[in-house]
Amino acid sequence: MIKRITLSLVVFFLCISSLAAQNQAVPYPEILPSWNDGAARQGILKFVMDSTNESSPQFVSPEKRIAVFDQDGTLWVEQPMYAQFVFALDRIKEMAPNHEEWKSQAPFSAILRDDVEKISNFTKEDIERILAVTHSGMSIDEFHGMVRNWLATAKHPRFNRPYTDLVYEPMLEVVKYLRSNGFKTYIVTGGGQEFARAYAEKVYGIPPEQVVGSIGKTQYSYARDGTPSLIKIPKVLLINDKAGKPAGINLMIGRRPLAAFGNSAGDKEMLEWTQASKGATLMMLVHHDDAQREYSYGPNSKIGIFPEALMKQAENSGWIVISIKNDWKRIFSFDN
Amino acid sequence: MIKRITLSLVVFFLCISSLAAQNQAVPYPEILPSWNDGAARQGILKFVMDSTNESSPQFVSPEKRIAVFDQDGTLWVEQPMYAQFVFALDRIKEMAPNHEEWKSQAPFSAILRDDVEKISNFTKEDIERILAVTHSGMSIDEFHGMVRNWLATAKHPRFNRPYTDLVYEPMLEVVKYLRSNGFKTYIVTGGGQEFARAYAEKVYGIPPEQVVGSIGKTQYSYARDGTPSLIKIPKVLLINDKAGKPAGINLMIGRRPLAAFGNSAGDKEMLEWTQASKGATLMMLVHHDDAQREYSYGPNSKIGIFPEALMKQAENSGWIVISIKNDWKRIFSFDN
Repeated sequence: MIKRITLSLVVFFLCISSLAAQNQAVPYPEILPSWNDGAARQGILKFVMDSTNESSPQFVSPEKRIAVFDQDGTLWVEQPMYAQFVFALDRIKEMAPNHEEWKSQAPFSAILRDDVEKISNFTKEDIERILAVTHSGMSIDEFHGMVRNWLATAKHPRFNRPYTDLVYEPMLEVVKYLRSNGFKTYIVTGGGQEFARAYAEKVYGIPPEQVVGSIGKTQYSYARDGTPSLIKIPKVLLINDKAGKPAGINLMIGRRPLAAFGNSAGDKEMLEWTQASKGATLMMLVHHDDAQREYSYGPNSKIGIFPEALMKQAENSGWIVISIKNDWKRIFSFDN
Repeated sequence: MIKRITLSLVVFFLCISSLAAQNQAVPYPEILPSWNDGAARQGILKFVMDSTNESSPQFVSPEKRIAVFDQDGTLWVEQPMYAQFVFALDRIKEMAPNHEEWKSQAPFSAILRDDVEKISNFTKEDIERILAVTHSGMSIDEFHGMVRNWLATAKHPRFNRPYTDLVYEPMLEVVKYLRSNGFKTYIVTGGGQEFARAYAEKVYGIPPEQVVGSIGKTQYSYARDGTPSLIKIPKVLLINDKAGKPAGINLMIGRRPLAAFGNSAGDKEMLEWTQASKGATLMMLVHHDDAQREYSYGPNSKIGIFPEALMKQAENSGWIVISIKNDWKRIFSFDN
């Protein structure tokens, strides 16, 4: 079923793109070289043409050119677990010598025993306790340091590389291509804002003020020498997921995006919100269907949920579904 | 006492500025022409020299050049009442025909009777009720429309001009001067984020993503035709005042500012937070001491509170106090 819809989308967008191709010769492979030249690549090129060409009826002035990218599963690998969750588990292990009691205390005991079965069935409350312990009680600067230290040593279990190596090369090309066309590029992640800020500038060229994420509260306080700092406290201000994404976008940007990239049901509202903008718009969903080179999530995946209904909405709304298998020539920078 | 401290600050900064002047001839009056050439003007020029001159030990790379401006009393007139509060009162009057019950219901009855005495003694709860009624229940776009309509007709009781005419010309010059030196300029107001966004781009050249303010919650919902919108609901996410200002700055910017401009005790933490940055910093407080051309607040003002302790902290910390009387050649664009 999914395959059939994807195919019909491909046919639909091939038609559109052949029209676009008649208007302007698109340099290839200089632009988006990691993309196969199918409907997805052509959709991106057509969007940039429509939004930036002053004679286009869908032209958008530069200050309104906003593009938003979900992170996990859209910009980098999210299987078998979100990187931020692995970070939290590793932090628990690092902190354990000062917490004898955790050996016999759920949910910490399961983490210390590497009980994968239990860990993968943690409840919302378990996860909240883990996040409270690992994501608060330190200053923002200290937290960034912890994340950077972790990223420097942690390796992905399957690819055996740092998580920041597992950024999708085709998406990095889109981020840069949009930026070179006057777009302000934002990360809009359900993950923590400060977690992503610790590396977003280095990895994606996205500065901290362009990272929208789930937001925890901070408390202003003074060190003994009077230096002020902001301490992360275990209270949530905004969950930047599902209907929270348009709210987070409005809070941080105050404009509707023209382009939005996601990969799961958590991105649905962000894509709807984008589509309601004036001028050219582009809504894309990365569909993980490549078990050989990356992952094929399938309908039972707990992460990156992509239900039949989302595929239907994409088809009805003119959103472009990116098939990793068909659309991406290579996935990572280290691929040939 | 205040005068004595201001004088000693003037002497101090005249010394600094005479040093700076030796290094580089400062064009005058092309830069900051509405400023008298005293300690305040020279402090701004020195800061820009130090932060942008690559050979300066306090040089700061462009992406880190952030300047933050309080709004009420710093960028525009805040006496005798905050513009946003006048907007709320006018909205109540406009809505009254559909609310017969308000005629006998506090706090609305006092507004409808123009009972200045009662209005100026409204409790926090009164104000919250007024804000709930006037600042929620509509979409963000509708709210912006209401603010713009109000600004187009409302006039300030003393100056008899639109509120947006009552922006301080010297501060507008600073905003533009910093921007022309690669600074990203932000409004950081205790007032509502969406209120300021309705006009910030037009009035200050500050885009919506650079407006940090008190933030209300929004709810994602669909119109009958399926179009999504964000509805303002009467719940507060962040009060962007006092210790809330560094928190709001961190949330929206994720970097410490290099320059901060305020005018009251509500800006103290923002200035401290700025001063703790690396590289050149500039902390300034507008001191309203000009009853003839604008206002002289005095120690009993309910708005723009500027206690003795703040003046002392400014002196001890090297913050620059701007005396409107002495430092501003003209205040508004319509002044000669």
